[in-house]
Formats: sequence, C-alpha cells, structure tokens
Amino acid sequence: MKIIDGGVTAAKGFLAAGVYAGIKKKRKDMALVYSTVAAKGAGTFTTNVVKAAPVKWDMKVTKESEFVQAVVLNSGIANACTGPEGDIKNEEMAQAVATALNLPIGAVYTASTGVIGKQLPIEVIKEGVKLLAGELKETKEAGTLAAEAIMTTDTYSKECAVSFMVDGKEVVVGGMAKGSGMIHPNMATMLAVVTTDLNISKELLQEALSADVKKSFNMISVDRDTSTNDSLLLLANGLAGNKEITEKDEAYEQFCKALNTVTTTLAKRMAADGEGATKLFEVEVTGANSWEEAVILSKSIITSNLVKTAVFGNDANWGRILCAMGYSGVNFNPDLVDLYIESIDGKLKLVENGMATDYSEEMASKILAGKEVKATADLKTGSSAATAWGCDLSYDYVKINADYRS
Amino acid sequence: MKIIDGGVTAAKGFLAAGVYAGIKKKRKDMALVYSTVAAKGAGTFTTNVVKAAPVKWDMKVTKESEFVQAVVLNSGIANACTGPEGDIKNEEMAQAVATALNLPIGAVYTASTGVIGKQLPIEVIKEGVKLLAGELKETKEAGTLAAEAIMTTDTYSKECAVSFMVDGKEVVVGGMAKGSGMIHPNMATMLAVVTTDLNISKELLQEALSADVKKSFNMISVDRDTSTNDSLLLLANGLAGNKEITEKDEAYEQFCKALNTVTTTLAKRMAADGEGATKLFEVEVTGANSWEEAVILSKSIITSNLVKTAVFGNDANWGRILCAMGYSGVNFNPDLVDLYIESIDGKLKLVENGMATDYSEEMASKILAGKEVKATADLKTGSSAATAWGCDLSYDYVKINADYRS
Repeated sequence: MKIIDGGVTAAKGFLAAGVYAGIKKKRKDMALVYSTVAAKGAGTFTTNVVKAAPVKWDMKVTKESEFVQAVVLNSGIANACTGPEGDIKNEEMAQAVATALNLPIGAVYTASTGVIGKQLPIEVIKEGVKLLAGELKETKEAGTLAAEAIMTTDTYSKECAVSFMVDGKEVVVGGMAKGSGMIHPNMATMLAVVTTDLNISKELLQEALSADVKKSFNMISVDRDTSTNDSLLLLANGLAGNKEITEKDEAYEQFCKALNTVTTTLAKRMAADGEGATKLFEVEVTGANSWEEAVILSKSIITSNLVKTAVFGNDANWGRILCAMGYSGVNFNPDLVDLYIESIDGKLKLVENGMATDYSEEMASKILAGKEVKATADLKTGSSAATAWGCDLSYDYVKINADYRS
Repeated sequence: MKIIDGGVTAAKGFLAAGVYAGIKKKRKDMALVYSTVAAKGAGTFTTNVVKAAPVKWDMKVTKESEFVQAVVLNSGIANACTGPEGDIKNEEMAQAVATALNLPIGAVYTASTGVIGKQLPIEVIKEGVKLLAGELKETKEAGTLAAEAIMTTDTYSKECAVSFMVDGKEVVVGGMAKGSGMIHPNMATMLAVVTTDLNISKELLQEALSADVKKSFNMISVDRDTSTNDSLLLLANGLAGNKEITEKDEAYEQFCKALNTVTTTLAKRMAADGEGATKLFEVEVTGANSWEEAVILSKSIITSNLVKTAVFGNDANWGRILCAMGYSGVNFNPDLVDLYIESIDGKLKLVENGMATDYSEEMASKILAGKEVKATADLKTGSSAATAWGCDLSYDYVKINADYRS
C-alpha cells in the first residue's frame, strides 16, 4: 500500500465538483461526487436521536438501494429540526441531482452541514446542482474543489488517498472530510465521503466501513457534542477490475488496511483542525484488559475540558489525566499506572505506579508546546490498547462558539 | 421551615474555625467543624476510581465509627495520587485533631482539596490543627471563617441554614460548601459539610443523605470532571432534643425537605460560582417518561460545551440544546419537544413541536443576558421532571485552567 496524491477523484471513474451556489455569503457551499458507473454504497451515521433530513434519507438509501452513483453535499444549512418540510426539501435536492445526471433518485446520497432549524433555500440549491453537474471532472483539482466546498470553520480542506494491488490490479481508496464548526457556529458536524474502484460485495463493503469507523472517526472528539448530521459515506464502483471480493480473504484485509489509512488520516486532520485548536492531542492507553476498556479510557482523557485546557497551557497537569481515567467508568488500579508524554521535542515519564516521577517541569512544558502531542497511559494489567485523537481547548473555541449567529 | 442566617454553626452544639496555616501562600487554608457531643455521621463520596486519601478515610469512618465529632478540612493540596505516604499523612492530620480535642481518631472526618500528586506538609498541618482547636467558636462568624478557609478559586463563600419544628422542638440544618477550582488550578473539587442538631438514627441519616445528593449536588456540573476528592459530610448531634427518628415518618420527611433546601441552595451557589462563570444556568426537563430520563436529558444539556458557550454569548442557539438531548442516550420524540427560556427579563417559547417559533432573537438575547437563566424542555410524553444546574463556558474558564500551576 502506498499513499498517493488526491482525494475523492483518485479512484477510477469518480468525478467531482465544488461550487459557490449562494447558501453562504461568499465561500463555496455545494459539492458533488459522481461515479460514472453504478457503485455499491455503504454508510455510517450519527447516533443522535435528533437526525437531520439527509441522514434519514441516506440511511434509507444505504438499506434499500441496489446501487448509488452520486453524493450531493451542501454547507451552510444543516437541514436538521426542520420537520416534514425539511424532508421534502432534501428529496428535492436529491431529485435535482437525479434529473441532472439521469439517475434514479435512490442512487443519490445527500449531506448537509450548518445551522440547525433553518430550511434549505431550494431554488438556490437547484441552481447549484445544475452548476455542479456542468463542472464535474475527474482531476485531482476537482476533488479539492469538492473538499473545499464542504468546509465550514475548517481552516484547511482534508483529503487523502492510497493505492494497493489486488489480483495484479491497482485499487485506489480516496476520501475527503470536513470537521468542526460553522460560519454561523453551530456544532462540530463531521461529513466524509470515501470512494474506491475496488470490486466488492455490498455486504462486505458495509461491514468493512462499520468496523473501521470504530477505530477511526469514532475515536476523535473536538467537544463531545455528537452532531445531528454526522455521515460517513463509502462508494465502491468496481472499476479496478479485480475479482469481486465476497469473503474475508487477504484482499479484504488489504482493503480494510487501506480504508483505515484514509479514514484515520482524515480523522486526525479533523481533530487537529478542531474549533480553536492549536495542536493535535493523541492519547494511547496500553496494558488494558480489553480493547473496549482502552477505548473508554482514552476517550475520557481526550474529552476532558480540564485536560484540554492544560494541554493548551503547556501544563503537565497529569493529575487531571488520572482523574479523567478515574471517572470513566472503567475499573483499573490507579496505583499501577505509568504515564508518558511525547512530541517532536522528546519523551518524558511523568508518572510511575500512580505517583509523580521527578520529571523536569520545564522539559514537560517544552514537549507539550509541540504541534502534535501524545500522552500514553500504561495500565500494566493486560495487553490491549487503543488510541484516540483530540485537540486542546483554547480561548478561540469559546470565541468561535459564543459569537452570535448573525 | 424557614431560612435562617448562618452555616455549619447554626445548629446547637456545633463550633467551627477557619485559619491560615501556611499551605497556600496567603489565604486561609484550614477549617475545623466540631460537635460538643457525639454525633452520627453520614457521607457521600466521589465515584472516581482514583480516590484521594481523605475520601478513603471518610468512607471507612462512615462505615465503621459509632459516632463522629469533628471534620478537619484543608485547601491547597488534594492528597490524591500520593500513594501509601498520602494515607499516612491523612491519618496524621486526623490524629492531630483527635489529640487536640481528646477524641478517638475514628471520630474525625478529613477533607482535602487542591493540587493532585503532592504530599501534605504535615508539620504545617499539625500547627494549623492547634490553631484551629484554639479558635473554635459557636458564632455565625466562626462558621463563615470555616467556609472561607475551604475556598480555592471560589469567588465567594457558600453557607446556608434552615430551621423547622419536630415534637415542639426547633431543629436546625446548616451547611457550607466549596466549589470549583484551585489557586493552582486543578479541578472542580466539591466539599460540603452539613450539620444538624436533629436526633435521628444513623441508618436513616445516611439514607436521607444518599437520597438527597441525587437531587442536589449530583445535579450540578461545572465541567463534567468528577473530582478525586468530592465529599459531602453530614453530622447530626441530637441536641435539638426531639425523640429519635427511627422510621420514615412525618418528621423524617420534614428533615429531608430541610436538608434538600440547604443542599440545593449550596449546590446552586456552587454552579453559579463555577470557574469563569458569568451566570447560573438552570435546565428543567418536563413531560418525561421517568425521573431517570429527565435527569439524563437535563444533565446532557447542562454539560454541553456548545450549549454553555452559546449561553455565555447570549445566543438563543436552541439547535444545540436539542442536539445535546439527542445524543444523551435517552430515546424521545424530537418532533414533540417544546423549549422555553426565561430569566428576570421575561419568558419566551423558542421551539414548538421540534421546530422554531417566530420568536424575537433580540428578546431571546436579552433574556439570556440575565444572571440566572433557565431553559425548560417539555417532552410532552409523560409526567416526570428533573432540574439540573450549571453555568456558562467563558474565556475565563480557559484562562483559569490553562495558566501554569506554579
């Protein structure tokens, strides 16, 4: 497997476009991803009881449609808490794409991100769809335009692609994602689209995605607020020409690995670009009795406001990390825990068997000042581990989210 | 029942003192509460797996001691993550009080709040205990000195007392508490001591306290970080002279009501004085199918960073409230929810049946600018309700917690 340039247009037969339609004031606000042939679709979605109209639609498409061929996305309005009218407007957006690309409506995924409670300006959307259909290209640049069009308060676009060989055929997996925040700040909605030219059964495609999300996107947190719109969509159009994968063989494992590289890369970039973030904060919990416990512990650390503010302040306030582990609900022996921090500036053991070592506060502060900081907590009772990604909590997080919407 | 002046010294036979011992740089840092006669003790403690030495001690005292007579508290050092040495130093602190007041060591509760991972300066503590023993008084002022001595980044001390009649005897319940933050910021440790001259069995005293804490202190949140040191201690010395309460009769109910007035008042003051808070934020969920579901929903709203920043910004960003309800884990119908906000400046219905009303944003912003803001979410499916208290998330929260410890 190798990392290659590009995003959603990297795999064979995928075209994309990103345009300014007029939902936002200035920046690009609509994107389209299109497969030239029928593709299998898989998706994972927010677990929030309050689900946006596009989420409900995509869940239905994933379950009922034989194939999918397009994903239309808008940024600016989330189309959540919009009642039956919101569902109708979402279908109108899907229908506009279906008409423009001569597809059945069930072959069109939709995604929205933005302020909650407002209706989509459907005439603007329809014009946007026409623009998008005319702009579809298979170039790397077209993929980047799409990745840019789904940004909100993201400070950079997020793309990633890899290739690997199956049956002597090159297979490509590429994706784009958007992270935290809104121009009219609302919430850290995550949207991601991953495309691949792999030939694989629909069942296995969904199974691979569902397993992957637990170790990639579900392991990041900017602010613990699970959005109403979170969606991860995966399209596989088979144009790589490999024999269809129908069982969990070596090719399947290779695909899972490639998929995980793309999703984890996008997820980490999302965490590093969290609202107001000044650094990526990675937490690994090792020596746990089970993977599930390591997940709970690492996420408890990564989501603690007190840990996040200490990381922002370059303060090796390790007591907060042990505290966050302690209230996670996992039973462990605090008197066994070792704790390390590291970054490009070095590595330091802060805690041994639950108590402070005689580490240098100056060195600790220098390490924490890095752009990518990692903390490792070793429970020393088992052999399971998990890694979570987050970011620090800064003044800018408060600023971005306290400012009035309009 | 009536509200009266005072705190831990309001009930008959309770003395208190607060002094500067030298743990902190300048401010008072040790407090003592003393009952002139043997009292029954009850306590509820942090559920954090990482428990401070005084918490472990008090759990043992509550379980094993026939009676208690003193509570010694220090602020500045939490005595958490301090290993066996921490346990020894905590016992030395208890022993110093036992010696000074001629009590068995098992009659002394201890409590600490402050930075994690440091050992108590035991000689300073011992001198402090001697000072405290000499200063013990039954005056209101002595109670206030004790309440001040347990403060950390609290901006004001927290006391409350009420009285009511049982068997023609006046019974008093009074208490003090400290909330969020440290001079060397660490975590929002909550400590509270409540005293009463009621005559009641030890079993019922504990039962009343355990039931009460679920509706008072457990319903507040400053930052979701459950401390290693949280302790609520209740002493009942029987000096009111009523017949001992041994069953859940009317007198017991009256006591529970009085206790709840004291604990809820202290809890609300703690929330309003949360680190960096500019206002008290109260959330009531009504029309729920069960009290448990109403609790989960109200706490999910009160702890959402996105809701808290919106409240700080006086922004009626109601989508965030519905979102926080949606990811709480409770299943409800979002299309039925009504949502109101109110403060001294008025009341407004923002959402009806899950969608925005045509409320005035200007009026909403004015209401949210109040010092005490309440949001009510009505699920309209049942008859259960719960109330939670929190505060907004401001720049100062980040500042207080990102500043270097020393």
